[in-house]
Amino acid sequence: MPKNAKISNAVIRRLPRYRRYLKELEKAGIDKISSNEFSKLTGFTASQIRQDLNNFGGFGQQGYGYNVSDLHREISSILGLDREYGMVVVGAGNLGSAIAGHAAYDRSGFPVKGVFDIDPARIGKKVRNNRVLPTSSLGEFVRKNKIDIGIICTTGDAAQEIVDTLCEAGVRGVWNFTMADISVPEGIALENVYLSDSLHSLVYHINQE
Amino acid sequence: MPKNAKISNAVIRRLPRYRRYLKELEKAGIDKISSNEFSKLTGFTASQIRQDLNNFGGFGQQGYGYNVSDLHREISSILGLDREYGMVVVGAGNLGSAIAGHAAYDRSGFPVKGVFDIDPARIGKKVRNNRVLPTSSLGEFVRKNKIDIGIICTTGDAAQEIVDTLCEAGVRGVWNFTMADISVPEGIALENVYLSDSLHSLVYHINQE
Repeated sequence: MPKNAKISNAVIRRLPRYRRYLKELEKAGIDKISSNEFSKLTGFTASQIRQDLNNFGGFGQQGYGYNVSDLHREISSILGLDREYGMVVVGAGNLGSAIAGHAAYDRSGFPVKGVFDIDPARIGKKVRNNRVLPTSSLGEFVRKNKIDIGIICTTGDAAQEIVDTLCEAGVRGVWNFTMADISVPEGIALENVYLSDSLHSLVYHINQE
Repeated sequence: MPKNAKISNAVIRRLPRYRRYLKELEKAGIDKISSNEFSKLTGFTASQIRQDLNNFGGFGQQGYGYNVSDLHREISSILGLDREYGMVVVGAGNLGSAIAGHAAYDRSGFPVKGVFDIDPARIGKKVRNNRVLPTSSLGEFVRKNKIDIGIICTTGDAAQEIVDTLCEAGVRGVWNFTMADISVPEGIALENVYLSDSLHSLVYHINQE
């Protein structure tokens, strides 16, 4: 896949959604879908979808619509979901355990290879397939096991130091669940899940309804 | 606050971010910030920020910038964060426990008033201040306690039925953490946190770096 530097983040954020619906359609045994039907399903306009997919060459056919499994495969490949990404979870509290214990990640190419915590009471406990390891061993583990993604489920004030350790040890991306405003070196991807932003946006819509 | 029907979702999604940075600035004792500094801090262009805030009347002053605490208060009020929202969490697994156990929600006007599960092994257990209640009592609880927000941390296939119960019982908003594509009646707000979309977007960026 070539680098698509000009593609906006908004487009990239819609691709996983398109893929999610395509996956459901494929599971339901549906071979093709018209752009209007796909628009209704996803809630995006047909022209928006067409425009988004045109960034990558376009996949629809006039008068036919989309071939479900082809488009599913293409979007998976654009996103890079056709290979595996080893992950570690740092912070084995409720949230970290929820993420690390999510069996679906294994099936979908995101095996959790290690879970870490600084709390001696948590170290050694089992979180699904993993025994919790001490955070002091994080850097070495990431290097040895060629980990791609580090997931931060610690407290906010511990986050930056852990991210530094992960980045030095060679992860390619950081998935941040803390409220901390962390930074990563150039060349490393960062995705923040600011849950309170999501809650605040819900509240705004509550007050508009 | 009047209804702002024309304001795009993209603007609404940026407001909580602006607010988050303003809160930090206020905590740090900073009174005012130039639009350029605020742009650097948030990562949005100064003109983007100005344009966003102009939707609500605009708050900056030429040659002065923004008054931090005024803008913080104004954005909080636009979002509706100047009052309290009672919440229930349905599903007391790791994720539900993480959300329900987050002490910060109480302080910030989002008290978790009830936690529910169908699993007898979980009912009666304590999640922070709450004993887990049976999901069968959810509707009555929501009605009696005038709950505003229902948080769905169950499995995907249980989600729609629980959302129906919540909506009939009078919640004003649903915060969905399952992968299910749920629907709510008109007049009720819905915010989906599709964590796998976030992970897939991270993976895309990993492959572009």
